[in-house]
Amino acid sequence: MSDSNTSSVNGNGIGVVHGSFHMTGDGRRKSCWYEEEIAQNLRWCFALNSILHTGATQYQDIALLDTKPFGKALVIDGKLQSAEVDEFIYHESLVHPALLHHENPKAIFIMGGGEGSTAREILRHRTVENVVMCDIDEQVVDFCKSYLVANKEAFFDSRLHLIINDARAELEKREDHFDVIIGDLADPIEGGPCYKLYTKSFYESTLKPRLNKGGIFVTQAGPAGVFSHTEVFSCIYNTLRQVFKYVIPYSAHIPSYADTWGWVMASDSPFMADAEELDGRIRQRVQGENRYFDGKTFISASTLSKAVRKSLDEETQVYTEGAAKFIYGHGMLVN
Amino acid sequence: MSDSNTSSVNGNGIGVVHGSFHMTGDGRRKSCWYEEEIAQNLRWCFALNSILHTGATQYQDIALLDTKPFGKALVIDGKLQSAEVDEFIYHESLVHPALLHHENPKAIFIMGGGEGSTAREILRHRTVENVVMCDIDEQVVDFCKSYLVANKEAFFDSRLHLIINDARAELEKREDHFDVIIGDLADPIEGGPCYKLYTKSFYESTLKPRLNKGGIFVTQAGPAGVFSHTEVFSCIYNTLRQVFKYVIPYSAHIPSYADTWGWVMASDSPFMADAEELDGRIRQRVQGENRYFDGKTFISASTLSKAVRKSLDEETQVYTEGAAKFIYGHGMLVN
Amino acid sequence: MSDSNTSSVNGNGIGVVHGSFHMTGDGRRKSCWYEEEIAQNLRWCFALNSILHTGATQYQDIALLDTKPFGKALVIDGKLQSAEVDEFIYHESLVHPALLHHENPKAIFIMGGGEGSTAREILRHRTVENVVMCDIDEQVVDFCKSYLVANKEAFFDSRLHLIINDARAELEKREDHFDVIIGDLADPIEGGPCYKLYTKSFYESTLKPRLNKGGIFVTQAGPAGVFSHTEVFSCIYNTLRQVFKYVIPYSAHIPSYADTWGWVMASDSPFMADAEELDGRIRQRVQGENRYFDGKTFISASTLSKAVRKSLDEETQVYTEGAAKFIYGHGMLVN
Amino acid sequence: MSDSNTSSVNGNGIGVVHGSFHMTGDGRRKSCWYEEEIAQNLRWCFALNSILHTGATQYQDIALLDTKPFGKALVIDGKLQSAEVDEFIYHESLVHPALLHHENPKAIFIMGGGEGSTAREILRHRTVENVVMCDIDEQVVDFCKSYLVANKEAFFDSRLHLIINDARAELEKREDHFDVIIGDLADPIEGGPCYKLYTKSFYESTLKPRLNKGGIFVTQAGPAGVFSHTEVFSCIYNTLRQVFKYVIPYSAHIPSYADTWGWVMASDSPFMADAEELDGRIRQRVQGENRYFDGKTFISASTLSKAVRKSLDEETQVYTEGAAKFIYGHGMLVN
Repeated sequence: MSDSNTSSVNGNGIGVVHGSFHMTGDGRRKSCWYEEEIAQNLRWCFALNSILHTGATQYQDIALLDTKPFGKALVIDGKLQSAEVDEFIYHESLVHPALLHHENPKAIFIMGGGEGSTAREILRHRTVENVVMCDIDEQVVDFCKSYLVANKEAFFDSRLHLIINDARAELEKREDHFDVIIGDLADPIEGGPCYKLYTKSFYESTLKPRLNKGGIFVTQAGPAGVFSHTEVFSCIYNTLRQVFKYVIPYSAHIPSYADTWGWVMASDSPFMADAEELDGRIRQRVQGENRYFDGKTFISASTLSKAVRKSLDEETQVYTEGAAKFIYGHGMLVN
Repeated sequence: MSDSNTSSVNGNGIGVVHGSFHMTGDGRRKSCWYEEEIAQNLRWCFALNSILHTGATQYQDIALLDTKPFGKALVIDGKLQSAEVDEFIYHESLVHPALLHHENPKAIFIMGGGEGSTAREILRHRTVENVVMCDIDEQVVDFCKSYLVANKEAFFDSRLHLIINDARAELEKREDHFDVIIGDLADPIEGGPCYKLYTKSFYESTLKPRLNKGGIFVTQAGPAGVFSHTEVFSCIYNTLRQVFKYVIPYSAHIPSYADTWGWVMASDSPFMADAEELDGRIRQRVQGENRYFDGKTFISASTLSKAVRKSLDEETQVYTEGAAKFIYGHGMLVN
Repeated sequence: MSDSNTSSVNGNGIGVVHGSFHMTGDGRRKSCWYEEEIAQNLRWCFALNSILHTGATQYQDIALLDTKPFGKALVIDGKLQSAEVDEFIYHESLVHPALLHHENPKAIFIMGGGEGSTAREILRHRTVENVVMCDIDEQVVDFCKSYLVANKEAFFDSRLHLIINDARAELEKREDHFDVIIGDLADPIEGGPCYKLYTKSFYESTLKPRLNKGGIFVTQAGPAGVFSHTEVFSCIYNTLRQVFKYVIPYSAHIPSYADTWGWVMASDSPFMADAEELDGRIRQRVQGENRYFDGKTFISASTLSKAVRKSLDEETQVYTEGAAKFIYGHGMLVN
Repeated sequence: MSDSNTSSVNGNGIGVVHGSFHMTGDGRRKSCWYEEEIAQNLRWCFALNSILHTGATQYQDIALLDTKPFGKALVIDGKLQSAEVDEFIYHESLVHPALLHHENPKAIFIMGGGEGSTAREILRHRTVENVVMCDIDEQVVDFCKSYLVANKEAFFDSRLHLIINDARAELEKREDHFDVIIGDLADPIEGGPCYKLYTKSFYESTLKPRLNKGGIFVTQAGPAGVFSHTEVFSCIYNTLRQVFKYVIPYSAHIPSYADTWGWVMASDSPFMADAEELDGRIRQRVQGENRYFDGKTFISASTLSKAVRKSLDEETQVYTEGAAKFIYGHGMLVN
């Protein structure tokens, strides 16, 4: 103690330590922070170990940070995309409910998903023969391929076919069909880049025709918290309700997002599997062990609280091209 | 514009951008911050480009950060030591007044200074034949030698002799004398590591005997702002007043410290040089051009404002070993 | 626009606006922030409208803030206690499951609860005849009575009996019995103030004897997120498992806490009510409408995700007086 | 100690303290912060005691905060205007050099200054018979009149004549003359509200004609730090150099601004007073004692460092109406 004190004397002397010299090891480790305004007037900050990589693609800024609370974090245009320690919650929830409710999913299409984690979860399913991952930003895909160790194997799986294109353009021109289509895109903010991929007409005219009989569509659906679910979750649900016979909204709390997140699964065939059936299919079809998702988890995730259930039932807005234009100006004022 | 919008659609789609998607390039560039509490209840934060190096020596934590407002910054135990863009203010102010007021400075001793910048400024003086730099933390010296490009040349100058030792122990055992001794140490916080290097008895019994006739001692003296000068600046001044015939306190605002900084120069020979004389000596003796310091700068720096001058005149505290122990407890309460 | 520009000219001139003058209305509204380190290396910050009241009781600091994202927020010793906009999630979840699973709850005891919100929810139950609220800090109770408008009515309900005492001491000396006992206390951090109110011996020897036949105990049980549930939630569950025949852990995401929160309900009589039964009892017994809780909400809340369920099953630690002392040091390392 | 621990048990129990319970008294006191981006990528944060008043005038947002490091702080449109503990540095520096260099200042005109502190310092001069304070924002003046106790007396001094108008319009229509005109306005940011009050043509055609023979003009001149002086300080200096025979730039570090601040004093009569003369005039003319300014302080303040002196000498930009328009777009890009 007095030793370390004495010694750090001139150690500090290498320059001037201005202000108080005794820092707790703890204080020390918190000089650098990642900060994000996850909502207006609300900030979420992670202490940083290091900034591993930063760069700019043709389309966006990208960074890989090493954070103390959540491990390696992928940040795009200043927004956290996924964090090492809990991305499994997001990706297991996005992928497994749809694939497990399907009788025999062989062909899968991913809109976006360039990070590779969605493909990784899909490829754990033994039934899967062909995965088309369609992301527009080749540099981001390359970035993730190089730096996201957890997804390395998936990127080199022979069943994965990577296409660099706009997901809508790609689906419009293709003529093959898929058992499951997965939307792993940015939220449908009016006037925003992904809005066109969440509209009723896109679902009806472009996406649904690409599904095989019994096919299932699932999409990430934005924040689904007691308050935040009205941002986009309830509208995505209501829009899909106009297009598919059976629609199941579900959610899960993701610590690094500081919010509960939502997904919506839709099909024209009923979702028959109960918790036991889902657990049985996991045992048969899925390689390795899930950390988050199983039959009971789905019961919980798909049983929404009174507050959220109520406003989903009452939601009337539908995302349409028209609405887009109309709401755009408003959207801009809001943002 | 609309292009980049459209395109960044699925680009963002590599994961989910939750919250608003349109970030200004500006917002983007400010996700990572270095934060320091430079005083109680006062924070100073720099946006970060990257964390270049972090490590821990036997004595302390050390980091080299690339900050947006101040360039590369050396941080020790969570405290900014010096920043690339303005360390010249600190180091020119620490070194040149003493060396230029001396008739012919040949032998210089640095207490601390492991960063290398103080040696760099000293070695610009053609009169200097021998510089002893005494720092206790070899790993910090090695760290700075490797990473602080601006000081590389100085570290390899044949006139520089690096000694790894406690500056007090070193001065006690040496028998040679110096024209100028420079204190580049942490502040004398009661109970802190460097306190013993600021006491009246250290100055009288250990340091002063190592000065040649006409020798000058100068030390960094902590914050010297209208309020902050009472932390240590006024006491260092008052302590040196007890030991040397002629004592000159001076200060300069250092942007990256968010404060005005102080130094005190002391000798038993009068300081005779006026602004013109100082400028003449700079032309004769100093290689390269100063960015901050010249004769007029010294007139300004050594003419303190009424507020600071007044409380320096009225300062009664003297740093003594006894006081150290006594004040220690109090110091701890304060900090 | 240009008007307001021109005019704000000398308006700004009332002093000096240093730095850029054009602030977005948005930027403007975000100068003041409430900041909390909700976990090591993790910060949660709310923009502030105002600081309504601050004070210090005999035991702790207390503040009532008006925050932009979550409305009025009660903060004790620098930790958010509850926020106006979402405290209903915490308090409905704490109170209604236990009272609704009981056949006919008349007498209720609250350990802590000085804020008044827990009493407010209990008093909505028509069956309730007597509520004893036992909190140690009279000044906090008075503070909440004065400032938390939503609880005013509850504080003045004739069925509420407020006692200022340590909950353990109170339960030890009482001889009457209760249908439901509710723990609304700080987390059982080893060496912390509330630890003694979460131990096996306290539950067995002090609390359980005060329950009527068919009585139910429920306690808040700390964070219950995918990672945070191991802090105390799993141990509280495992400790109660040693004392009661039937134990149900459940959880809900609370936006202002930036985490999922947990509660544990325990009894020696089985919990028989299903979702429909719970909804029926709500209709019969509860005045006013719940915002968050109903039968389905309880199904979801009490069906934990695989990750949490697994580690609750595997939890072996039990809170005991002995353990307390033993674990204390460890606890300190952790904190 | 253990007492307060024990007791705070259920005290905390009034709700849930989530996370660690042991806060240092210090940590406790730092939940609320005022934050300002004083430059791009640079933040300055003060711990808050309270938010005393907030409001919006016809022109701007205004707030009075009680900060821990700097006392009461006036904030306009999210920018600190002046802080209780150090506004004396700014206002003594703005007012006294001009009034003391003048032989016998009787009539003074303030452009802006609605805060009242500038008038307060002027009114301390016994020679002053008439002060015209011209600010455009009546509500801000009323706000300061009500809340800034230190200026109450000044606001009610019979020698003060408050006019609500644009300073330029007012000077254009007036026909009386002044011994000293003081500019206490926002910085001349291209396209900004105050730009027109810093141009060569305004000084030549509008301001100078309103000065008596021997009259002096002084203006706040923005940041004057080693780097920040190029924002506006050097251009204001260079512009005044085109219009007046004698021009003196000077500066002082203001802790709450986290920067050195600048002022420029100009006249067609030489500035003759030396330090002793200035001190003599202070004794004769000024009521009460200055805290910051005296003869020596002015010597120091008006002797700029080599770095700043050099770039002031080399400054070529002149603020002109034309330039304003031309630079406007550029300015907007930059900001």
